[in-house]
This record gives sequence, structure tokens and C-alpha cells, in this order.
Amino acid sequence: MDDHIQWVDGALILLDQRVLPRAVRWVRCTSSGEVADAIRDMVVRGAPAIGIAAAYGMALAAAGGEDLDQAARTLLASRPTAVNLAWAVRRLQGIPMAGWGDEARRLHAEDVRINQALGDHGAALLPPDATLLTHCNAGALATGGWGTALGVVRSAVRRGGIRRVYVDETRPWLQGARLTAWELARDGIPCTLIPDVAAASVLASGEVDAVVVGADRVAANGDVANKVGTLGVAVMARHFGVPFYVAVPRSTLDPHTPDGAAIPIEQRGADEVRGHAGVVWAADVPVLNPAFDITPAALVTAWITEDGPWKPALPTGPESVAG
Amino acid sequence: MDDHIQWVDGALILLDQRVLPRAVRWVRCTSSGEVADAIRDMVVRGAPAIGIAAAYGMALAAAGGEDLDQAARTLLASRPTAVNLAWAVRRLQGIPMAGWGDEARRLHAEDVRINQALGDHGAALLPPDATLLTHCNAGALATGGWGTALGVVRSAVRRGGIRRVYVDETRPWLQGARLTAWELARDGIPCTLIPDVAAASVLASGEVDAVVVGADRVAANGDVANKVGTLGVAVMARHFGVPFYVAVPRSTLDPHTPDGAAIPIEQRGADEVRGHAGVVWAADVPVLNPAFDITPAALVTAWITEDGPWKPALPTGPESVAG
Repeated sequence: MDDHIQWVDGALILLDQRVLPRAVRWVRCTSSGEVADAIRDMVVRGAPAIGIAAAYGMALAAAGGEDLDQAARTLLASRPTAVNLAWAVRRLQGIPMAGWGDEARRLHAEDVRINQALGDHGAALLPPDATLLTHCNAGALATGGWGTALGVVRSAVRRGGIRRVYVDETRPWLQGARLTAWELARDGIPCTLIPDVAAASVLASGEVDAVVVGADRVAANGDVANKVGTLGVAVMARHFGVPFYVAVPRSTLDPHTPDGAAIPIEQRGADEVRGHAGVVWAADVPVLNPAFDITPAALVTAWITEDGPWKPALPTGPESVAG
Repeated sequence: MDDHIQWVDGALILLDQRVLPRAVRWVRCTSSGEVADAIRDMVVRGAPAIGIAAAYGMALAAAGGEDLDQAARTLLASRPTAVNLAWAVRRLQGIPMAGWGDEARRLHAEDVRINQALGDHGAALLPPDATLLTHCNAGALATGGWGTALGVVRSAVRRGGIRRVYVDETRPWLQGARLTAWELARDGIPCTLIPDVAAASVLASGEVDAVVVGADRVAANGDVANKVGTLGVAVMARHFGVPFYVAVPRSTLDPHTPDGAAIPIEQRGADEVRGHAGVVWAADVPVLNPAFDITPAALVTAWITEDGPWKPALPTGPESVAG
């Protein structure tokens, strides 16, 4: 799965992740505004993948003679939590505009190699034939290809095998049920889909060797913003003595954000919780629907990057973040 | 909400909890087999409520000249985890058959009074104007009326107020989104529906004064079988320093089961996880769908019954149960 972001004849073609796996549909973007819409509407999601899409969005703005500052602002405003978006936009702004198309393609190709490198570093931390648990989708679909958390899984498979991956379904957007399970099944990697609420008893059973997740932003002190529910899995992993690994490219590390409390948490609409795909099941009551949560650095066993394990510059204190 | 289980003209009329709140539909049972089907298919659910339904099922068996041993076996086999089912069937078997109809009605009416008493005991443990979090539905719908966990909420409202109840949606069957939110909204009690995955950040925020849940069975050592996900909430509550209360009638205490490891955990079908109400969203992969999990006694702040706080006979040891 490495063709979900395509640059064809000067247009960005995105696999529509809103409708997978029920339908395989593509969205074509020819301006930065269309790319920003695709990011906001979650046609493409996952921190590295939206960074790549934003880079192509900047290239489209340059090619189309758009107001480049406005294009950057629109792309940066599309989703607030993932830092890769700003990282990618700034990277393009740092070179002459004429090179933005090539730079976006380079950034895209680099991301796959980065994921393979971090995948190999992560796989080296696992016992042979490991059983893992993951939350959300930090797979090929969330990146340029290979994946971060699922990159660790794929590298472990290449090294000799994975016994099983437990996949949290990841309400409300169901990235686990729809995307991670689909990716793993396509690759023939044994996986078991579980409701998020079953993660506790799976971790309590002693069967899981490690939890591996991705991240949308890692603060300077090591606090991790990732898909809502990650904090709960981290607390449970700590309680049951299961290592908790965060697999991220260095572009997800944010030295400018001191800690998790400084990371903006996107709030999404009530309809995502009240139903799915047109079916409404919930009572008509207020809804709280944060898209992310903050896992304090103290709950992270290791942060895995393409350069190997990373450590926050400051020593990890007691949990400083209330999510 | 105390009319969801009705005994009318010698038939048991059950509000169909599978389709609430989208539809208000009733199922009429005239034999023990129909009652067992209704319990198995979750037309009626919640440990006290299925105990009441089973008692009426035995009364129907007696009135209809059924093989009473067979009727008891069929009812007992309908769902394995809740102990109230066996408790109710045994209670009827302990008296002459001619009195079963009256005894079922008596058991039903008693349950409401029991819930009001345990609700009052639970409310006394809360600060004024408390913010609570609950999982699944331990409300009027899960009992004869008033509720266990929601009985505590209702009693607290009567004593002066509840600021807010956070309601876990409770995948896969969505008892929180469909039933608890509906019950609370009908009673005008402020509530906020959250995806199960958001419970961690809500608990981390410091806003929640206590978690209150019901139970399907409490073992002699205090281990608690309740809706899957309860264990995770209990672990998070402990981590974030939030009291974790289990509200149960004494009929849910099971002195014959030494600990949680001895409680059978019902496994349900994959379709409940792969979609809802006819919409299928998940990839075609294996699914693990336990209906319950075991919360070790060590994570419970207090067990609240109609007689006030209960304590296991044995001292609570370290967590002995792997769920």
C-alpha cells in the first residue's frame, strides 16, 4: 500500500480514506485549497501523510500562481494537532518556489525510507514472533508508505514474524477497524480486531508483548499527542507491565512545543459520535469529541525514530500533563 | 422509566432495548422459551433486569404447564455471566409453583426499592453537585426501575444536584449512547456522551469526582464482572486518583464464585464489532468480542448495596485476576 498519494500530470490524487474499505474512491486536487479541504475532511489523514499532502498543496499553489502566503495559511489551518503539516510547509518555503514540485516528491519518497528505517529500529526491540496491540492507523495509509507503528510491524514480519496484531477499532472514526485491519489483511499479517473497550482485558491477559502506536506530535519533553484513546492504552499498558512504544519520524518531534499542555487538541463534531455512515444511533445529548489526547512522557517506554531510540532533552519528570 | 418490563394479562411485555432510541418497540413473551430468546438476543439486558425477566419466564412456564426443569435450564443458559439470572430462578424454585406469578411480581417491585436504597447509599458518598462518569447502562432499563449506577445518579439529583454525567458510548452494543444518554435526557439530568476512547482524557482533566458503574456479578473476593471496558475505566480511575464505585443489589453478589477468574465471560459474535444496524464498516478480519471483563477488587473504592457499603469477606489481596 504505497500508492494512496499520487502525483499524476501535475495533480494530487488521494485515496479517499473516509470510505475505505467499503469503497475504493479517489479524490483529485489541483489547488492548495482543494488539498486543505481534503486534509480537513480526512480524505487523507495521519501526521506524515498530511505533511506530504500539504507539500504537494504548496507545489500546486506555486504552479497555479496562487497567493503563496495565503495558501500556506489555509493549509496550516486545515488541522491543528499534527506538527508534520507545518514542518512540510516550512520546508518548501525554505527553498526557491521553482523547486517545490520536486521537493514535494522528494519529501514523499524520503518518508517511505524513513519509515523503513524506524520500522527496523522498532522491530529490533521486539521479541521473536511478538504479539502486539496498536491503536488507530499509523500504517502505510497514514504516511508515504510502510507506516510508523505498522512500519515496525512490517519490519518485524520481514525479520522473521509476528504472531498477531490486536487492532483497536478506534472510535469514532474507526481507523483501526477500517484502515489498519484492511492494511494488515492485505499484507497477510495475522490480526484480530477488537472494540477499544476490550484492550484492557487483552492487555491484562499477558498475551501482548508490546503496544506500538504512532503520534501526531511529540513535545520537547516527550509528551505525545496521538489519536484519542492512546492515553488510556498507555495507562493500561503501564498498569499491566506491557512496554509502550511510540514510532515517529523525526519530523513529528516538535522542539518548539515544550510539553503536551501546549499542543492544541482538535475538537470534532458530534455527528461522528452519534452515528456512522448515515446511521444515527445515539440519544440527542451533548457530545464531547476530542480527536487526540496527550500521553505524558512518563508512560512511554521508548520513542523510536529513523535514527533509533530518541530521548527528550530534559529528564522525564512526573506526569505533568492532564490531557 | 419503570414500565419497560410489564406483566399484562399473563404475558411478559418487554421494551426492545436493541432498537432504542431510534424506535420504541415491544416484544411479548408467553413462554419461558420466548423469555430466554429475549434475554439471549438482548431485547432485555442488565443483570437485575434479566433476573426479573427470568422470574417471569418461570411463572410463564408454570402457568403454561411446561417442563419446569427444562424451562429453568433454558433460562439459565440464555446468558452466562450475570448471576441474578440464576438467583431469580432459584428463588422461584424455592417456593410452591402456584405462587410463582406473585413471586415474580414481588421480586420486580422489590428491585425498584432496592435500587432506591442503594442509590441513596451511593449518593451519600458523593460531593455536592458532583461530576460523574459511567460506563454501559446500569440504569432503570437494566433493572426493575431507578437503576443501580444511575440509581446513585438519580438519588444524588434528589439530594440536591448533579453537575454532569459523562456517558461512555460503550461499544460495541452502544448501551451508553443509546440507553444511558436517553434515560438521563428523559430525566433532564445534564450528561455528555463521549466515545469510550475519550474517558482517559476526561478522567485526566480532574473534572470527574467519581466513576460509578453497575455489575453483572461480584465474586466472593470482590472481583467485579461488568460490561467490557469497565476494567479499563477502573485502571484509568486508579491512575488519575478518581474513586471507582460499583453499585449492585445484593443479588449480584455471588458467594459461590471465589474470584473473577471463575466467572464465565460471554463471547459474542463478530458482526457486533464489524458494524451496526446493518451498516458494515470493518475489514474482513478475525474479531475478539468479549461481552464482559473482570475488574480486580483492588481497583474498587467501594461496593454499594441496598444495605450500604459491602466488603469482601477475605481481605483484598494484590490483583489476582488477569481478566
